Amino acid sequence: MALSGAEGATARPTVVVLGLGLIGGSLAAALRGNGFAAACIGWGHREASLRRGVELGVIDRYTLVLEDAVDAADILVIATPTLIAEEMLERILPRLRDRPRPPVITDVASVKGSLQRTAERVWGAMPPRLVLGHPIAGSERSGVEASNAELFARHRVILTPVAANEPSAVELVRAMWASTGAEVVDMAVADHDRVLAATSHLPHVLAYALVDALARSDASDDIFRFAAGGFRDFTRIASSDPVMWRDIAIANRPALLQSMDLFAAHLDELRAAIEAGDGDALLQTFSRAKAARDEFAALLAARGQSVT
Amino acid sequence: MALSGAEGATARPTVVVLGLGLIGGSLAAALRGNGFAAACIGWGHREASLRRGVELGVIDRYTLVLEDAVDAADILVIATPTLIAEEMLERILPRLRDRPRPPVITDVASVKGSLQRTAERVWGAMPPRLVLGHPIAGSERSGVEASNAELFARHRVILTPVAANEPSAVELVRAMWASTGAEVVDMAVADHDRVLAATSHLPHVLAYALVDALARSDASDDIFRFAAGGFRDFTRIASSDPVMWRDIAIANRPALLQSMDLFAAHLDELRAAIEAGDGDALLQTFSRAKAARDEFAALLAARGQSVT
Repeated sequence: MALSGAEGATARPTVVVLGLGLIGGSLAAALRGNGFAAACIGWGHREASLRRGVELGVIDRYTLVLEDAVDAADILVIATPTLIAEEMLERILPRLRDRPRPPVITDVASVKGSLQRTAERVWGAMPPRLVLGHPIAGSERSGVEASNAELFARHRVILTPVAANEPSAVELVRAMWASTGAEVVDMAVADHDRVLAATSHLPHVLAYALVDALARSDASDDIFRFAAGGFRDFTRIASSDPVMWRDIAIANRPALLQSMDLFAAHLDELRAAIEAGDGDALLQTFSRAKAARDEFAALLAARGQSVT
Repeated sequence: MALSGAEGATARPTVVVLGLGLIGGSLAAALRGNGFAAACIGWGHREASLRRGVELGVIDRYTLVLEDAVDAADILVIATPTLIAEEMLERILPRLRDRPRPPVITDVASVKGSLQRTAERVWGAMPPRLVLGHPIAGSERSGVEASNAELFARHRVILTPVAANEPSAVELVRAMWASTGAEVVDMAVADHDRVLAATSHLPHVLAYALVDALARSDASDDIFRFAAGGFRDFTRIASSDPVMWRDIAIANRPALLQSMDLFAAHLDELRAAIEAGDGDALLQTFSRAKAARDEFAALLAARGQSVT
């Protein structure tokens, strides 16, 4: 199927999802369920997952041949982890160069700068029909079995369009995400990577560092025996996929390091206040943090995302 | 009411709770509900809270006069925040010195070393009928309105008895907590403070430091707009009471500083690995942390505490 003229005017697009994990599977399930897509096709290496995707009604069909997947697509969603997404661009972009009307390509990776650099290197500039995006939704669960057509409802999806993008390509990706119930917002690539470093990548690194530090300490048995609810919530994100987070940490290295350094400086200040027994400084910091966190929780609640 | 001979053989004790917040209120509610206590009496400064406690059925009655509270008690539970608990010991212990049979005293504070030092200073040694304890249960909610007779069920309560304690006093406090459905375990004071620093006090400091660092950054508006579920869980404990956590940080200063330094050293290692792009080191750390956290979550689940 080929779209003629401006995207999405009438014909429903065929959506091809590369990588049928939690995010790719949930997107396909949403786009099949709401009628946005004429068909959802899966591509990946593990045929068992793809077959399971068909069984679960997440996709209409699948292929193991990347060329067939690209040929079938009006919209190509790279839904692999971050570093694999870079590889996918390296494999896909060269074969699209001579096509008069390549598919619109988008992705779901947690880091945008590294993908933009890869695309620019491979294509010579930002490809006009590549619109980078990032749904701010997820779960520590993974795999196609965890697919959930409602995963994006009331959640944000950030698109990072650039001047080189075809407006119709941007609008098609925006319409795709809007159809899932997500709120789509635009951001500059560098802002996205900075904000995600602060709110997601840094917390993951802190949670991994804490749990690993405790697990390696002499008293680790007692420590885990007597930890309770607060510790459970604080460390939940340390149950996330280590491969995915290794890749994110490396892909977003500059912004993550900056974020870590800002945090370390604050922690040093707090350490000094604790050592000095400076109760006023501690109370000021803790109170400011509580106020900001309460405000954030109210904001999430107002958006309809459950808060505890 | 006075208990004759060994505690708790037949007569039910009158329990006096000093400070009717979440923990004190929940304990009183549990001990009234399960029939362990002949009566539960509240003491505090804020009469409105105490009156509300009676209305809610949390306590039988209350007094604003500390002497009356102490006189009425077979078991005196100091359920005030950590630093206030030190003050309470300073006020109560001197007037018990000449009594042939003072009440058994226990507490619920998050730090045990600071209370032990206070008691030893005031009494000259550890009072035989003072049995320090700490229920590992709580909530970011606070106040008598949040009282919940089931709060301690399937949770741990740590007692830190010392050689100077009367065995019958230790057993009475143990029986009191066991009646609430808690699992009571003994630990050395220093071990308690080290384990709690690692699993509770350090995570709270990290959460406060992170939220405050982000709130004070230039991009704070965007940061909180685009934060999602992982950030919400990671920072939930930063909504805890700042005064309580200031007090805990100061009371457990030595163990907390040690814990912070261990963590900072690990974070430095991780930072170096990220800067060097050392994917293997990151994967190793993240995988070890995930394994430890998954094991911990399974342990909590086996204990009947819900896990996400």
